[in-house]
Amino acid sequence: MSLKLYSYWRSTCSWRVRICLALKGIKSEIVPVHLVQDGGMQHKPEYRDVNPLGQVPTLVDDNHVISQSMAIMEYIEEKFKSQGPPLLPDDFAERAKVRQLCETIASGIQPLQNLSVLQKIGETKVDWANHWITVGFQALEKMLTMTAGTYCVGNNITMADACLVPQVYNANRFKVKMEDFPIITRINATLQEHKAFIEASPDNQVDCPNKN
Amino acid sequence: MSLKLYSYWRSTCSWRVRICLALKGIKSEIVPVHLVQDGGMQHKPEYRDVNPLGQVPTLVDDNHVISQSMAIMEYIEEKFKSQGPPLLPDDFAERAKVRQLCETIASGIQPLQNLSVLQKIGETKVDWANHWITVGFQALEKMLTMTAGTYCVGNNITMADACLVPQVYNANRFKVKMEDFPIITRINATLQEHKAFIEASPDNQVDCPNKN
Repeated sequence: MSLKLYSYWRSTCSWRVRICLALKGIKSEIVPVHLVQDGGMQHKPEYRDVNPLGQVPTLVDDNHVISQSMAIMEYIEEKFKSQGPPLLPDDFAERAKVRQLCETIASGIQPLQNLSVLQKIGETKVDWANHWITVGFQALEKMLTMTAGTYCVGNNITMADACLVPQVYNANRFKVKMEDFPIITRINATLQEHKAFIEASPDNQVDCPNKN
Repeated sequence: MSLKLYSYWRSTCSWRVRICLALKGIKSEIVPVHLVQDGGMQHKPEYRDVNPLGQVPTLVDDNHVISQSMAIMEYIEEKFKSQGPPLLPDDFAERAKVRQLCETIASGIQPLQNLSVLQKIGETKVDWANHWITVGFQALEKMLTMTAGTYCVGNNITMADACLVPQVYNANRFKVKMEDFPIITRINATLQEHKAFIEASPDNQVDCPNKN
């Protein structure tokens, strides 16, 4: 097996996928794509051939090249179903809850504060990002009152938790008042202690700057 | 069976779900949520109880309440697998292609030109929307060179086609130069003739204004 993940240490979408791979104990070769250096390696023709949108992550599994973190996480779950814990529940209504939480982050929040959007927004980018994360977290917190146990949906870790932790990191980066979101805060704190989440965190990536 | 879809005639995310229901021949009660009138019905407490993010669509299937169009489409496919044509291929690598195209639209393009974002952008909203749809379509067009047959992925209609048609409608609304995207244009034209796509189109919704 030759699994390659194009990733950037602080990209929340790359991080989601790294968490899923770590949860399942799947080894992959991490290929760092620096999103800032030299105007961004993601815009170079070599990388555009791999991912036309010029975003990370991209998963390369032999001759399969898959971009979009949600598509990659579903692929990992389907291809490696029997390896490690499931990332989605068995019941389709429970699966819908997980995907709803994932998409609230992946479509509802993250796209509004990704690098290319913030570069276009310019000076007011912190206020802009803070606004959209806050609005999104208000919805997420309310959804979690209906779905959460120890984790986002019940007491098993799912894809939704893999989306949550990176988004909380960005919320802190953009000075979101996390005390308004007690359930998100509590689940995030629990997940911070988990081996797979530690392994996948930005600080533990080969391309993290100032790494000892 | 009591299936209820909270929808707005011109919401591209509602439209995706309407297409999937129509493709599978699943009847549902459409509950219109007017996104503009009176400051937007989606912001009223009654609707926020159904969907905390205050967005359409929301699917209510007896006691299951599901928001986020991607989560709803996956739910429909899983629950009604044997009813009508499949919305995802059987092979997991092909499924990944479909989901990658879906997410390129659902996370990569649509969130940047949805109503609440355009309201925040203000005066320059047409340029803003045009920019992000153009950038997204450049990527999508390139991906389609690798996946498309008659439709987005091969010769069967999938969820990706349900995402494509509404996004092309918005591209036209925001004056995107569609002649730069021949594959998208060709697939969209083919789908415009399809019965399910006609049934699900904004013009054929009960809440479409100026409807005869």
